[in-house]
Amino acid sequence: MRYTFLGPSGTFTESALLSIPETHTSERFPSPTVPAAFRALLLDQADAAMVPIENSVEGGVSATLDSIAREKSLRIIREVLVPIEFSLVARKNINLDDIQRVSTHSHAWAQIRQWAEQHIPQADYVPEQSTAAAAMGLLENHPTYDAAVCAPAVAQNNPELTVLAENIGDNKQAVTRFILVAKNPVIPEPTGADKTTLVVPLPQDEPGALLNLLEQFSTRGINLSRIESRPTGQFLGSYFFSIDADGHLFESRMQDALRGLHRISPQLTFLGSYPRALYEKNTVDPVHADKAFSQAEQWVKSLLQ
Amino acid sequence: MRYTFLGPSGTFTESALLSIPETHTSERFPSPTVPAAFRALLLDQADAAMVPIENSVEGGVSATLDSIAREKSLRIIREVLVPIEFSLVARKNINLDDIQRVSTHSHAWAQIRQWAEQHIPQADYVPEQSTAAAAMGLLENHPTYDAAVCAPAVAQNNPELTVLAENIGDNKQAVTRFILVAKNPVIPEPTGADKTTLVVPLPQDEPGALLNLLEQFSTRGINLSRIESRPTGQFLGSYFFSIDADGHLFESRMQDALRGLHRISPQLTFLGSYPRALYEKNTVDPVHADKAFSQAEQWVKSLLQ
Amino acid sequence: MRYTFLGPSGTFTESALLSIPETHTSERFPSPTVPAAFRALLLDQADAAMVPIENSVEGGVSATLDSIAREKSLRIIREVLVPIEFSLVARKNINLDDIQRVSTHSHAWAQIRQWAEQHIPQADYVPEQSTAAAAMGLLENHPTYDAAVCAPAVAQNNPELTVLAENIGDNKQAVTRFILVAKNPVIPEPTGADKTTLVVPLPQDEPGALLNLLEQFSTRGINLSRIESRPTGQFLGSYFFSIDADGHLFESRMQDALRGLHRISPQLTFLGSYPRALYEKNTVDPVHADKAFSQAEQWVKSLLQ
Amino acid sequence: MRYTFLGPSGTFTESALLSIPETHTSERFPSPTVPAAFRALLLDQADAAMVPIENSVEGGVSATLDSIAREKSLRIIREVLVPIEFSLVARKNINLDDIQRVSTHSHAWAQIRQWAEQHIPQADYVPEQSTAAAAMGLLENHPTYDAAVCAPAVAQNNPELTVLAENIGDNKQAVTRFILVAKNPVIPEPTGADKTTLVVPLPQDEPGALLNLLEQFSTRGINLSRIESRPTGQFLGSYFFSIDADGHLFESRMQDALRGLHRISPQLTFLGSYPRALYEKNTVDPVHADKAFSQAEQWVKSLLQ
Repeated sequence: MRYTFLGPSGTFTESALLSIPETHTSERFPSPTVPAAFRALLLDQADAAMVPIENSVEGGVSATLDSIAREKSLRIIREVLVPIEFSLVARKNINLDDIQRVSTHSHAWAQIRQWAEQHIPQADYVPEQSTAAAAMGLLENHPTYDAAVCAPAVAQNNPELTVLAENIGDNKQAVTRFILVAKNPVIPEPTGADKTTLVVPLPQDEPGALLNLLEQFSTRGINLSRIESRPTGQFLGSYFFSIDADGHLFESRMQDALRGLHRISPQLTFLGSYPRALYEKNTVDPVHADKAFSQAEQWVKSLLQ
Repeated sequence: MRYTFLGPSGTFTESALLSIPETHTSERFPSPTVPAAFRALLLDQADAAMVPIENSVEGGVSATLDSIAREKSLRIIREVLVPIEFSLVARKNINLDDIQRVSTHSHAWAQIRQWAEQHIPQADYVPEQSTAAAAMGLLENHPTYDAAVCAPAVAQNNPELTVLAENIGDNKQAVTRFILVAKNPVIPEPTGADKTTLVVPLPQDEPGALLNLLEQFSTRGINLSRIESRPTGQFLGSYFFSIDADGHLFESRMQDALRGLHRISPQLTFLGSYPRALYEKNTVDPVHADKAFSQAEQWVKSLLQ
Repeated sequence: MRYTFLGPSGTFTESALLSIPETHTSERFPSPTVPAAFRALLLDQADAAMVPIENSVEGGVSATLDSIAREKSLRIIREVLVPIEFSLVARKNINLDDIQRVSTHSHAWAQIRQWAEQHIPQADYVPEQSTAAAAMGLLENHPTYDAAVCAPAVAQNNPELTVLAENIGDNKQAVTRFILVAKNPVIPEPTGADKTTLVVPLPQDEPGALLNLLEQFSTRGINLSRIESRPTGQFLGSYFFSIDADGHLFESRMQDALRGLHRISPQLTFLGSYPRALYEKNTVDPVHADKAFSQAEQWVKSLLQ
Repeated sequence: MRYTFLGPSGTFTESALLSIPETHTSERFPSPTVPAAFRALLLDQADAAMVPIENSVEGGVSATLDSIAREKSLRIIREVLVPIEFSLVARKNINLDDIQRVSTHSHAWAQIRQWAEQHIPQADYVPEQSTAAAAMGLLENHPTYDAAVCAPAVAQNNPELTVLAENIGDNKQAVTRFILVAKNPVIPEPTGADKTTLVVPLPQDEPGALLNLLEQFSTRGINLSRIESRPTGQFLGSYFFSIDADGHLFESRMQDALRGLHRISPQLTFLGSYPRALYEKNTVDPVHADKAFSQAEQWVKSLLQ
């Protein structure tokens, strides 16, 4: 197996990938962007790609939500949760008061904003493309900023960097969810604690369209653990919904909900059924269990004979 | 074909049967009660039975609703609407003021109540088992009442009866709906203007249970033209619903709704799909059309491969 | 207080009235029909009327449902449950095999049908207007039938009647619900175990109209313990619903539901809030409690200032 | 009136502000961030702030959605739509092939991505905090990139900049929606074509919670023109919804929906009722009109007397 991940090395995404033991002995390489990581899959340069999809503070990762929504052959096969911690690093040990410019990824900046206003209010923010790139920028010949905010691992792996402050995130419970994506993979077997990810365009000019979509889940007793709206990019007010639903494609209630959704929104995309990171068994009311569905199907068939 | 109908001869039910031309040359015989008419079907003494199911003034005919709900092999194959008109008849021409006692079926009495209060306020009501029986009772040796309320046809067919007043129904638009029932018949082909009759027990102790049932129809765009609650007879608050839904068993949206209903209420009974008496094409939104259902099914199948 | 009840004396309705101790020392008189009992209220000839509304075997009592639906000043102030038992009586002790004709009210006949088919299959049925009238008919000079089905109390109170069989009802748990009705009464204070009775005409030509009505209850967490359809009498397919909803007019969620219903069906009628016969406290989710409603109202008011 | 806007000068936000004629003669100053713009309102340094809220390509502007959700005294009083066009600019006329590094705001970069891959595939992307800042960066002594993507106006206003390519956005219909925000303003009068913006936290651990929220709108006939999920930042799976609903706070159906929402989610925030940018009258079914609400209220009041 060859793995790619949203790079560069040293970001939380690489940590997410390394949390899966079998990746340690496999080929791993960073991709500069989420679309590039997916392109590596489509071109068979990698077998699986780890990318972030949702941060508990900053929300959905638009690049991932939008890129994966466009590809019909990509499927999520696994999710990983990584607690997010930030360190402030510099080339050498300097006073916080002496920091004039500080760099990091804009999402990371948003997550340490309060700490920064309190401890380095004088510092200007310089955006960078990733937290790791910001840290690496300090090692260039003429760095354009004095300090960077990055993952603790980056500082540990670079003896040239000095940690000025640790665990500076405003929300100590911050966690990011990553997904492992593959091209036309075998769907993982149901575990009883699965989720199914869907992309459902909202039918236009239909008052109550979203209500109709949601009823397809509720009338089959399917709970939603995530629902996120994204613009289709076509015009203002044109949305799709990125949805995580409790259950697995191999379960009747999910198949039935998918049929119902397809009638309403035929362009929907199935992005995979896979085990939830935190094991918690889905509860299924007997009226929504496989047995109830097969009995109902048998009954209707008997009427038609 | 042998036909039975809720008798005796001369009631509106016989009129309903005779409104079907092919019955004129067939064997026809009255059954004393609705259960007796159904028993004739079950015992192969008749091929089809005509019984009343709903009156626009008096409501559902409990005997029919309850009897047909209990038999799993009976199916409605046709419905007939008959306008209801009542005549007041007597043995000889007497003054309305001289009528001391008047007899008819209790449903007929309910439908001429206002006329009676105005024109024969002095008359006591004597219940009979049918309007025709009430009229025939006048011809006995010692009739126990002076006049009867019956269908105009009864008076026409009996020269011994004199019509005292015609068209005395309080509601001139009164109409009764009759159904033609057979045992395990071939289901009539869809016409585009069909209805499907169901008996659905309401799950106990389920707040919102009726709402769940109704959503099975609404989420598939199926309109209900009749919904009637009836006690199951087991205990107070235990109901079933007798439902007429627009559409035919051979249509995907109806099959899908039946599957959904069966999960919620597995004891439901399918009582037939048949053309509506008044032709009016059912409108089907494209998202609920057969094509949308088959495409949805194909899509889910493709995911499972 | 003067009480009337659906007569004659000796029926289950009188038993229902006598189950209320304070009626024992009050004036009580029978009314021949349900409309007559209500007329006695409107004419101030009585202060309260006891009438049957629902039988666990035969269903809603149409005469009551329809009559009370038409009167805007009548209100239910109490409900009473009476277990239903039937006895077979005759003028003298005769063999069951010798009974040629048997009389009773048609609802009673429906409730002992199976017993009759087994024990007196040879007997013809003669309808009467009440069980008590059937029993009394045996005492006339020339009775037209040999036996009658009536309440046990009638036999006990009439030494001339002989009991041929006791407790002959097909369903031993049969119970009938009666309501005590008054004209413009003070609404009984909430007890926490109350029900509210409504008559709601179904808006015409509105697919999903019933669903809309039901949602007015469900979105406020109000459970329905009874829902019964009745024809308005205007034309086929024109219905109103007779509804018992858990809760009291003095509770905010009920007032809010009534406002919602009134918008959809402005001709609805409020028939009273009164304690349930069997005490069982209504459960109210905090989001539907009075406090949540008053806080919501305060908040919107604050926005408008 | 003093106006602030998300700066620096030359961005689309300033264009949005200048599209309102009365701002031309007023004090106007840029704020470096959205929170800073809102702080200017809270500190009475400005009377109104123009900020972007939604882009047809990139979606909701998180900084705005999150900042405004936290402030209880801020209200939207107006919205403005601005078509988005991008130009590629440089210090002097250079070949596209010679561009090694190009800078702009990350949202702008996302919107010209396809053009860039086709015309300047060799160029590395350098993030900047705004499109205008990227353009201005070219004018520094030692610019760290060769070209910038910015609004056409910036190039027009800076003779030192050369336009290399115009209208390079991937989506030619791209439009951004801006809002004008004030502190505790007078709510604009209803025009019949209004929208109301709300922030509604989703109750935790409530399957169907979102469905319940949406039903508060649908049962009052209120259409939603935008619904966007955002993390509360507390933990994964904890969301609030940013919602634009058709209608005005002064209309009864909106007040009623707000009361219903408050019961379910008491921490919701009202962010204002204001005219829609594109005038299109809201359609209101008679059952949801003010008159229906006031009649319903009168009726319930009459019951309580």
